[in-house]
Amino acid sequence: MANKKAVVVGAGLVGSLWAILLGKRGYQVEVFERRPDMRRSEFSGGRSINLAMSTRGWKAMEQAGIFEQIRAEAIPMAGRMMHSTDGELTFQPYGKKDEAIFSISRGGLNEALMNLADEYDNVRLHFHKKCRKVDLENNRISFVDTLHNEELSIESPLIFGADGAFSAVRSAMQRTSRFNYSQQYLEHGYKELTIPPTADGGYRLDKNALHIWPRGQFMLIALPNLDGSFTCTLFLPFQGEESFEQLQSDEQILNFFTRYFGDAVPLMPDLIEDFRENPTSSLVTIRCNPWQYQEKVLLLGDASHAIVPFYGQGMNSGFEDCTILDQLVDQYQEDWPTIIQAFNTTRPKDANAIAELALRNFIEMRDLVGDPMFLLRKKIEKHLHQKYPNEFLPLYSMVTFSHIPYSEALAEGQAQDKLFDNILAIDNIEQNWNSAEVDQLFHQWHHAKANQS
Amino acid sequence: MANKKAVVVGAGLVGSLWAILLGKRGYQVEVFERRPDMRRSEFSGGRSINLAMSTRGWKAMEQAGIFEQIRAEAIPMAGRMMHSTDGELTFQPYGKKDEAIFSISRGGLNEALMNLADEYDNVRLHFHKKCRKVDLENNRISFVDTLHNEELSIESPLIFGADGAFSAVRSAMQRTSRFNYSQQYLEHGYKELTIPPTADGGYRLDKNALHIWPRGQFMLIALPNLDGSFTCTLFLPFQGEESFEQLQSDEQILNFFTRYFGDAVPLMPDLIEDFRENPTSSLVTIRCNPWQYQEKVLLLGDASHAIVPFYGQGMNSGFEDCTILDQLVDQYQEDWPTIIQAFNTTRPKDANAIAELALRNFIEMRDLVGDPMFLLRKKIEKHLHQKYPNEFLPLYSMVTFSHIPYSEALAEGQAQDKLFDNILAIDNIEQNWNSAEVDQLFHQWHHAKANQS
Repeated sequence: MANKKAVVVGAGLVGSLWAILLGKRGYQVEVFERRPDMRRSEFSGGRSINLAMSTRGWKAMEQAGIFEQIRAEAIPMAGRMMHSTDGELTFQPYGKKDEAIFSISRGGLNEALMNLADEYDNVRLHFHKKCRKVDLENNRISFVDTLHNEELSIESPLIFGADGAFSAVRSAMQRTSRFNYSQQYLEHGYKELTIPPTADGGYRLDKNALHIWPRGQFMLIALPNLDGSFTCTLFLPFQGEESFEQLQSDEQILNFFTRYFGDAVPLMPDLIEDFRENPTSSLVTIRCNPWQYQEKVLLLGDASHAIVPFYGQGMNSGFEDCTILDQLVDQYQEDWPTIIQAFNTTRPKDANAIAELALRNFIEMRDLVGDPMFLLRKKIEKHLHQKYPNEFLPLYSMVTFSHIPYSEALAEGQAQDKLFDNILAIDNIEQNWNSAEVDQLFHQWHHAKANQS
Repeated sequence: MANKKAVVVGAGLVGSLWAILLGKRGYQVEVFERRPDMRRSEFSGGRSINLAMSTRGWKAMEQAGIFEQIRAEAIPMAGRMMHSTDGELTFQPYGKKDEAIFSISRGGLNEALMNLADEYDNVRLHFHKKCRKVDLENNRISFVDTLHNEELSIESPLIFGADGAFSAVRSAMQRTSRFNYSQQYLEHGYKELTIPPTADGGYRLDKNALHIWPRGQFMLIALPNLDGSFTCTLFLPFQGEESFEQLQSDEQILNFFTRYFGDAVPLMPDLIEDFRENPTSSLVTIRCNPWQYQEKVLLLGDASHAIVPFYGQGMNSGFEDCTILDQLVDQYQEDWPTIIQAFNTTRPKDANAIAELALRNFIEMRDLVGDPMFLLRKKIEKHLHQKYPNEFLPLYSMVTFSHIPYSEALAEGQAQDKLFDNILAIDNIEQNWNSAEVDQLFHQWHHAKANQS
């Protein structure tokens, strides 16, 4: 390509990262972002929202060259800390001894990525630029400068839509023929709350865990921030017996929290105020296909596959889009029609798989983590993984601590379900969880699977 | 309701029917249609496209009071007539001796419904009115008169969106919070072709059957028209080995038809011309939820549930929307908030069920109808239905010849699949299809099902 030019729509996590990876290759990259520059605006030091970075995300950080910088500010969470109704704590490790997911600040990460993008002379970030029109046929995209109310328009041989779940680039593609699209909302909403640091800046809960208060149809979670605080998120149905709709008065809110999250209430001095001031947001899964328009427009991240947050893979999967696409750029030596086609042929099925896994994990987090049979299965999974590290990798580990394509992880997880149907049916499995019979069933299963493939 | 007023958007089959049913109740109904009045335009006598009316549709015709009129022009099709590659014919009845689906003209039916609506002084049809904006909050809807390029706007306590798969009313609802929506296209397209009448106005094929040329990944079908012609539809992948993409030259088209539909070629003297002139259209399934906006806007027909045509239930399900809604109007005595809520609570699951069944039936029509095991199952189904008419009703009959809610038909069909898994596994089932063993399995299955419910 004589003319190495690209437009990236959106300077969020995925857009900023992709601009860096294109910048490294010497592309002239113009990035257009609807919002103000978060590094200058008053929101910069505002409410900290955190994300869980895992193996797929870290790979992208390495590729961008800021692994060390981000890792230095990340808080490892080695497992789930379950809070029972009477305040009893149970810890479930996520993986092996040295494996963890990491709580990081969304804003901090985004700013770091923007700063890195700014270091490339050939990458330019434009803020306050709201996408107004995408002329797919002519590779032309128009923006309104919302500060000066001016229009601008740019033509580019490559346009990347990294403009999130309500993507303007995807909207234009939705009007083309035979574009498959779906948006599905959960009946649950979420609201963020805060556990502030102690007076001396310490943590009020174990900071190296993801805290969960699983309550069946709903749950509270908490992730640590660097400043000693935790950001809590309440996931609750919008309507019904226990729901946001039922939490109107201060008394109703306090009664609800006292009843279900009794040990958390003393940790949240601003509970009522936070609850009233913070918005109740919805949770959507977005799927579409194709992700490309001809050989010049491609969607990345939430724009093509927004997922619910319950597997902690929203950002990680968006970042993996970038690392996979970057590999394809190497593999096909910047032959963009082939690269875009190859990406669109393989990646959507992985996005569909993690969308499905994320929906299922909501049930696991809010309900199953308190179920004795589920806990027993986890124990046996760990046992099998230790005994047969190459033959058995639990689903959670495949998703979180590996680069195995999500669709393969999903398929392997379904195969594992069949194995555990048999294992958990063993007489007195509670006592016999590490018996020879378990091993025998595992070997039969593994053998049958090997013969199939 | 002191003020009995309603707006219906769309004067297609469902919009016209619903205007009639409201008109009968004395409502002041304003119907706005984007297209010209088909009764006056030159398209009136144009290409006849036909539809298969079955039991659910006929009920709506009765309720509207035009059963006799429409039935007089309908052509009964008592079964499928399969055409093998070498021209051999096999007839599969759809149901019992007196059961049939009926080929009717879409245009003729739509005109008859419009004429009937026009007979009500309190129903007014407005043509050339393109919906421009729906202000859901204020019950106000704006149209552009495309003939005079004028705007008009109307407020109504009730707005019904019967404006088809690409509904403007639904588009407005899509922008409200937590609106679930999906549009899924098949990889197949379709093209209409014609078998003209004989020189003396007769039919070139048996007119009392729906003709199918099943060829695995694709198929041709033909439905009779009143004038002696048949409207044929070719369903074929857009891309791939055998696909629309591969049919470019006259020679390619003719070779394809000669190879796969040899006995149909001599019946289609204008095949090449028709193929070149008629559009290749796509096939979409549209699902959404909710169908209502508050208690004043409701979607009907394709606007909320466009389905693929393979079960012949698109029009029938849209008409059933109207008959069910009409029953709710009686039941709740014009208490519209309750009516709309009740409709939205029960009907979408039936729409989802027929969407699913229609997708599956494509595989049945294009592929399975030529499969000996499938034909054997059909034979046993018929046998069981004759022997136990109250205990066993085949899925096709539930959908086509009954008013059983589609979702119940789907569930019963899934239960029947399990029965037939066992029956078809009987040794030498080809010989033993009416053996005591089949009866025994049926009784076990029926007994287990009765105990469950």
